[in-house]
Amino acid sequence: MTDSSTNMRLKLPITCFILQIILIILFGVLVQYDEDTDAKKHHHGNHSKTKPDIENDFYYRYPSFQDVHVMIFVGFGFLMTFLQRYGFSSVGFNFLIAAFSLQWATLMQGFFHGLHEGKIHIGVESMINADFCTGSVLISFGAVLGKTSPVQLLFMAVFEVTLFAVNEYILLTHLGTRDAGGSMTIHTFGAYFGLMVTRILYRPNLDKSKHKNCSVYHSDLFAMIGTLYLWMFWPSFNSAITEHGDPQHRTAMNTYYSLAACTLSTYAMSSLTAHDGKLDMVHIQNAALAGGVAAGTAGEMMLTPFGSMIVGFLAGIISVLGYKYLTPILENKLKIQDTCGIHNLHGMPGVLGAIVGAVTASLASKEVYGEGLEKVFPEVAGGHRTASYQGGVQAISLAVTLGMALFGGLIVGFILKLPIFGAPRDTTCFEDSLYWEVPGEEESHEGQLTTVKTEESDKLNS
Amino acid sequence: MTDSSTNMRLKLPITCFILQIILIILFGVLVQYDEDTDAKKHHHGNHSKTKPDIENDFYYRYPSFQDVHVMIFVGFGFLMTFLQRYGFSSVGFNFLIAAFSLQWATLMQGFFHGLHEGKIHIGVESMINADFCTGSVLISFGAVLGKTSPVQLLFMAVFEVTLFAVNEYILLTHLGTRDAGGSMTIHTFGAYFGLMVTRILYRPNLDKSKHKNCSVYHSDLFAMIGTLYLWMFWPSFNSAITEHGDPQHRTAMNTYYSLAACTLSTYAMSSLTAHDGKLDMVHIQNAALAGGVAAGTAGEMMLTPFGSMIVGFLAGIISVLGYKYLTPILENKLKIQDTCGIHNLHGMPGVLGAIVGAVTASLASKEVYGEGLEKVFPEVAGGHRTASYQGGVQAISLAVTLGMALFGGLIVGFILKLPIFGAPRDTTCFEDSLYWEVPGEEESHEGQLTTVKTEESDKLNS
Amino acid sequence: MTDSSTNMRLKLPITCFILQIILIILFGVLVQYDEDTDAKKHHHGNHSKTKPDIENDFYYRYPSFQDVHVMIFVGFGFLMTFLQRYGFSSVGFNFLIAAFSLQWATLMQGFFHGLHEGKIHIGVESMINADFCTGSVLISFGAVLGKTSPVQLLFMAVFEVTLFAVNEYILLTHLGTRDAGGSMTIHTFGAYFGLMVTRILYRPNLDKSKHKNCSVYHSDLFAMIGTLYLWMFWPSFNSAITEHGDPQHRTAMNTYYSLAACTLSTYAMSSLTAHDGKLDMVHIQNAALAGGVAAGTAGEMMLTPFGSMIVGFLAGIISVLGYKYLTPILENKLKIQDTCGIHNLHGMPGVLGAIVGAVTASLASKEVYGEGLEKVFPEVAGGHRTASYQGGVQAISLAVTLGMALFGGLIVGFILKLPIFGAPRDTTCFEDSLYWEVPGEEESHEGQLTTVKTEESDKLNS
Repeated sequence: MTDSSTNMRLKLPITCFILQIILIILFGVLVQYDEDTDAKKHHHGNHSKTKPDIENDFYYRYPSFQDVHVMIFVGFGFLMTFLQRYGFSSVGFNFLIAAFSLQWATLMQGFFHGLHEGKIHIGVESMINADFCTGSVLISFGAVLGKTSPVQLLFMAVFEVTLFAVNEYILLTHLGTRDAGGSMTIHTFGAYFGLMVTRILYRPNLDKSKHKNCSVYHSDLFAMIGTLYLWMFWPSFNSAITEHGDPQHRTAMNTYYSLAACTLSTYAMSSLTAHDGKLDMVHIQNAALAGGVAAGTAGEMMLTPFGSMIVGFLAGIISVLGYKYLTPILENKLKIQDTCGIHNLHGMPGVLGAIVGAVTASLASKEVYGEGLEKVFPEVAGGHRTASYQGGVQAISLAVTLGMALFGGLIVGFILKLPIFGAPRDTTCFEDSLYWEVPGEEESHEGQLTTVKTEESDKLNS
Repeated sequence: MTDSSTNMRLKLPITCFILQIILIILFGVLVQYDEDTDAKKHHHGNHSKTKPDIENDFYYRYPSFQDVHVMIFVGFGFLMTFLQRYGFSSVGFNFLIAAFSLQWATLMQGFFHGLHEGKIHIGVESMINADFCTGSVLISFGAVLGKTSPVQLLFMAVFEVTLFAVNEYILLTHLGTRDAGGSMTIHTFGAYFGLMVTRILYRPNLDKSKHKNCSVYHSDLFAMIGTLYLWMFWPSFNSAITEHGDPQHRTAMNTYYSLAACTLSTYAMSSLTAHDGKLDMVHIQNAALAGGVAAGTAGEMMLTPFGSMIVGFLAGIISVLGYKYLTPILENKLKIQDTCGIHNLHGMPGVLGAIVGAVTASLASKEVYGEGLEKVFPEVAGGHRTASYQGGVQAISLAVTLGMALFGGLIVGFILKLPIFGAPRDTTCFEDSLYWEVPGEEESHEGQLTTVKTEESDKLNS
Repeated sequence: MTDSSTNMRLKLPITCFILQIILIILFGVLVQYDEDTDAKKHHHGNHSKTKPDIENDFYYRYPSFQDVHVMIFVGFGFLMTFLQRYGFSSVGFNFLIAAFSLQWATLMQGFFHGLHEGKIHIGVESMINADFCTGSVLISFGAVLGKTSPVQLLFMAVFEVTLFAVNEYILLTHLGTRDAGGSMTIHTFGAYFGLMVTRILYRPNLDKSKHKNCSVYHSDLFAMIGTLYLWMFWPSFNSAITEHGDPQHRTAMNTYYSLAACTLSTYAMSSLTAHDGKLDMVHIQNAALAGGVAAGTAGEMMLTPFGSMIVGFLAGIISVLGYKYLTPILENKLKIQDTCGIHNLHGMPGVLGAIVGAVTASLASKEVYGEGLEKVFPEVAGGHRTASYQGGVQAISLAVTLGMALFGGLIVGFILKLPIFGAPRDTTCFEDSLYWEVPGEEESHEGQLTTVKTEESDKLNS
């Protein structure tokens, strides 16, 4: 099961240690508490003199942060455990690259979002943003799941986080784009970046490990844990960094209804596209979430529950159709091996969300938003741009994001193709025992025996 | 495994699509953001001028909402995965009917709770109420688990949500009943409605699939995920829509102690009623939750932790005794096949909770509640009724709820008996592969083989 | 599988009933709502007249409480399900002793933290403290996991909660120690108490059930549910009872970065210490959490993210080294059979956290903390002691805690050795079927058969 090229004995520890030590040094040099986390700043200055403890941003955002945190670690982690012998890697590598990415993202986003006298100021909002950026990396992970070493994944995260921060900077700071739930910055970016990477890493002989690239009964139940946590907490995700008050409230509610409608269209389409009307777990686990992705940009706007439900309804239909008909085409014609089908869950619904956001933004008006326009479209409320101009900016942002993602994925894909990273061979993809000490599956008394058998049959298959 | 009558190819998609499209149209016509979610309303008018963002209802209730949301989707969903081959359906149909019910409940409750110039106003409180109503449908689902098609379940939800809203309207609006955690409106109603439905759907030959109507080792662990989330978040459930401040705080605490006491009496009774003192997972998974149900009405009152613990203690005892001695009688004598034993978890503890609520209400006084009486018993504080009258109203509400549930279940049961809904045959109950594409259970390399074997043995059994 | 000595038929019910009835009586005599939970108190007096509902302590702490609650019941419970045939007991006994401990802790902590005219006042903060104390008991449970009866565990909890409250009282009230996240009071205390208990309960012939003292594939995935919830919510744990505002915010953030850094060093060390570079699930499940333990004392201080990351980084290294090299030595030389390796997860990282806390405290100054010094070090801010004196107090507190834990564990260990508690024999350790009705593991159709087989092979093994 082990050969020298995939042995992680030195590669993984060295990578982890070097990355972590660099992070620690950079944090030491660059990072400071912000006004709401610092003991001194919080209690001095004009600002806080009138601000009671309850108005610390912590109380506005920490519950949402924890929901997002659960989505990142349990949601994404368990969603990918559907593979029969890749549960350790799905949850475990998800855990590793997320723990790295959130630190690196704090630095990259802090750097681009604006330094304060040369320092990055952090608090609960930056923690959420770091988790968001991490989410983008985990989306890309879904495309290459089972076919990459942990060292490859860490290097992918290094580059992807950086590019994510650049793209986010261009959109939010330069273009003045609105994208609170990240239909573009998180989902579209993560999906098309990951698809390009997996395209470059194309394995013509991947069918050698095809028999492991599917689920078993219990692994599908584990995956449903991931699905449900993503589904339940998506309202928190989309609303986590919107403005305080009505926008946060409205975003959560819009997302809630978008997801509910999406779930019904997913079940309908899953049954409709099967020969005998049977539901497919792949659709339920993934497409039912597309409504959250598609409400990522327009969620904070006055989309109304009615509009949200239409968006979710369409997202579910598109996503199931993607799983059923587009994924095989991508694999066979375009050589894109997309393990988790991220194109269907994050790619197309992300683009849909961006378009819905552009249209909704272009319809914004003082009549509808009243004084609240300031919170959602400050540029429009301030008279610096018209609503239709804002809509155009939103559309351009989608194009920028797609360009950044595809170009970035191209470069990074070629870097990751270098043989030094210890990628698995075609015969050992989708197999935990390559990188993990794996116990037997069977019951008690025969544990020892079973493990041996498993390794034997592995040999036979490889 | 498939025959034409249970084939969902057309039935399920048509049902989902039609229901969802009706929902979207009705939302478009009837639903509006409320004052705390609307950009314009939130920033205009006398009310909000003095209201800081932190007093948006979102910050009072959203963490509780998310806890309730987890109970509905993960709690109920995984609690029912204890069956060995019905995990996909337990989690998956739970997901489907919950996603439908919460939308339909928004409309029904909004309609009955009072329109604003012909419109339903929604926000975080209506989201919680919609989840509550959904909970009631999921309780009923527990009674018919394994014996119904997804289309049957959706139609059950259509009717049950409607009746729930009517009953809730009679109690809360007309009678002025207090029932924040829903001992009556949610648990008693859901339980007796479901019991009547399963009575009407009685299957004399259900023993043909008896061998599948039990758990395996891992399925019991999955079910414990559901149990624990229900148990942990029940304090949030009971307190989610109580008044701001001390009532919310007090309700959460009362429920916390009720559940703790209930857990100890459950373990004691489970061991005591076994021949050899061994604990039974069915009791632990279910009866330990009865303390939450039983604190549903009186939780917001000055029940005291002492009172809460007595209530929880009794609820655990009653519930285990129910599982041990009453469920077999119900099945054999009254022909009520109650898959999850909802009578023991929601039925009897719900009635207990209603009685405790009536007694506690009748003891309310200005001495005990001070100015806080206004928040818990506005009618009593306002001098419109005496405490003992309020207690009488509470008791009457229980009777109304029981009547509505039993009568409603009777009618709906007969509707669901129509052969058009694709219910499973007696031999294919408790079996995922009827409605789901099911992978094999075994390890990797033999996946293909195992699936075949499973289908074969199914044939043998059917 | 059953013999009379381990039969729980009378022992467990009697123990549960008596304990619960005592608890109910004591709650009736001693416990009252506090100012933020009582209907009357909340609405009278000077205090609340100016206090809006949103400043009820509930809104500051309840989301953190629920996160802590999840850690206690799902986190600890599932973390211990890694054993192949001990999942029911891991989750189930965890549930039982936690439900008992939180009630008993309310009384013990209330008693020692100060009575109000002879009464214990409770609210969300006391609920968090009770959960904290419970956490300590569950840590000790990890050491004796698989080798104790539920009755033994309940009695262990009775004594340990009491000693915990005494130790906490000495530290927090008498010495003025700062330990918001409990590096000392919870982790160090729980670990060394449990290690001493398991030392006294040493079983020379434990290798008779060695074949069951290991994991299988799916049990490791269940354990990862526990790990991830502990990891994600540790920021809430450490910040749950810190002062409102910036300390709570800062503590959560420090812990977040400590855990992230810890995760990378854990993966690095796990791979580095393996022969072939493969990751070990035991390390990932446990050592990645050490960063949370080690940030327990200094988390609320101005440790900075930089400092937090260094602490977490070291904690991960120490913890993996402990699992790899120290645990076998403890077992073979010191006869300490530590099932979950709590010495590596809670013991050493707890001591590290205490030391970091002492050093950080001794560096506190008005320059760094400004007016915020009052919130973190009231004694220093008030001029009653210097920062270095505070640091000395912190160090002494560690010594006191270690002494209390070891001495307490010694006494309690001997009590638990009494033959009346129904401990398992050496051959039936790590086996659910001793105390639980256990279904078969296999698939459907053969359920009945398999169960029989399992019991047979059990006989052969015992």
